[in-house]
Amino acid sequence: MVLVNGEPRQFVSIFDRGFQYGDGLFETIEISGGHPVYLDRHLKRLKLGCERLKIPCPDRHLLVHEAQSLAENQAQAVLKVIITRGLGGRGYRQPDVLQPTRVISLHPFPEYPEVFKRQGIRARFCSTRLGLNPALAGIKHLNRLEQVLARAEWSEAAIQEGLMLDSNDHVIEGTMTNLFYIADGQLHTAPLTQTGVAGIMREIIIELAKLNRLEVAVHFFKTPDLLAAEEIFVCNSIIGLWPVTELETRIFVKGTVTRRIMSWLACYKQQWLGQ
Amino acid sequence: MVLVNGEPRQFVSIFDRGFQYGDGLFETIEISGGHPVYLDRHLKRLKLGCERLKIPCPDRHLLVHEAQSLAENQAQAVLKVIITRGLGGRGYRQPDVLQPTRVISLHPFPEYPEVFKRQGIRARFCSTRLGLNPALAGIKHLNRLEQVLARAEWSEAAIQEGLMLDSNDHVIEGTMTNLFYIADGQLHTAPLTQTGVAGIMREIIIELAKLNRLEVAVHFFKTPDLLAAEEIFVCNSIIGLWPVTELETRIFVKGTVTRRIMSWLACYKQQWLGQ
Repeated sequence: MVLVNGEPRQFVSIFDRGFQYGDGLFETIEISGGHPVYLDRHLKRLKLGCERLKIPCPDRHLLVHEAQSLAENQAQAVLKVIITRGLGGRGYRQPDVLQPTRVISLHPFPEYPEVFKRQGIRARFCSTRLGLNPALAGIKHLNRLEQVLARAEWSEAAIQEGLMLDSNDHVIEGTMTNLFYIADGQLHTAPLTQTGVAGIMREIIIELAKLNRLEVAVHFFKTPDLLAAEEIFVCNSIIGLWPVTELETRIFVKGTVTRRIMSWLACYKQQWLGQ
Repeated sequence: MVLVNGEPRQFVSIFDRGFQYGDGLFETIEISGGHPVYLDRHLKRLKLGCERLKIPCPDRHLLVHEAQSLAENQAQAVLKVIITRGLGGRGYRQPDVLQPTRVISLHPFPEYPEVFKRQGIRARFCSTRLGLNPALAGIKHLNRLEQVLARAEWSEAAIQEGLMLDSNDHVIEGTMTNLFYIADGQLHTAPLTQTGVAGIMREIIIELAKLNRLEVAVHFFKTPDLLAAEEIFVCNSIIGLWPVTELETRIFVKGTVTRRIMSWLACYKQQWLGQ
């Protein structure tokens, strides 16, 4: 099921700037029990991304209505929202009047084994680097070749995520996740001001940590800092949180702090869905 | 006129990885007198780009055939070729079997006034920076948000091009052109190993310069070096070469070296078309 500008079809014009230049944004949202989970937060980030790229953001009520109509009767699924700058313009120059394209699509929920959550996953370092660009950092835009190239670096089914460094050797995030580690009783994660995507699950984890008096240090760090960590985990809106229990040749435990955060997350989601 | 995988239609699937992630490449080719100009060089760069992104490049004969069939009877036009990794995959991970999408489209030739070539253009510096990524540098991929943002920085019709710096303050190229300057009797241009697009016109200018014993220095340079230049010009496959005679508040001449290069280019194009 796909809606393009509100109409059920699966195609966009080749002249759409999303196709021509990756000139747009997206959101990937979990559907649970017929509800698009954390839709409010996703739409807020989408609006912020639109402001950053100067794309007029489609009306919030329209997006909520379309998202909910696709989510209805879906026990568990993935909803993807894509907003592009629309058609036209000469070359990179945008047309004087913008008519953004709005694509909302429904996808099956990926069948990740429960063991990833329970026992943790295996991760590796990718050699593809994240370029630095403050103008694009943090937002979930459609220029995703770095992630595509990083994800193509391995095909072993035993490895679930690849961690990416920026061009200054800072460890930033996973190909499809944000990254945290625990050291000295604190939660650590990289700033996403130069590159990377500021994930909704990352935002919620930081809020819950602060609420529960777990200190969060947002700072640049390098590979040795990560390898010296007590616990490591990755997160996104679809997987929730996966402990990283193997990183290259190093073994980590699914520790007490990770377990606490997982229980906070489960509780918070229950509350959100119960509202 | 548009051909998508050989068929006349103007739409692609929203599931195409070109639309989802900008996962592909493009070429912009001048059509002159029914011929796609320098098609051989464009297809060579496209193939190189496909190799870099590990996208199977469509058959050369097929591309030549489709390009020529669209170019036929067109006195002057623009041909655009887009190759994407095609449909499918889970998230950033590509499917095991790739079926690239091939889009060839015909566009009117932009009506640039002759005065741009004859008297030169006005350029400015953009504040949007080019992020560094050797994995993507040089190729003409579909992740073009930096160029879109840079081009959106000005709307004055009197300014024809914006020059972009990388995150190390090196001047690299224009939003849609490559950049050269002349100083100490040499031609200077930036390396495109960290960012930027290695243009066909840039390649031809470097070859013609060497052939005519004009030394070409490919090196990183900064704003003061450029402002101290004797002559400056920008180039691409559609505009050919435009002298830059105004850059911010500085005035430059359309000098003798630029004039010589323009005559070499005209001659070379004549020969190519006459073959």
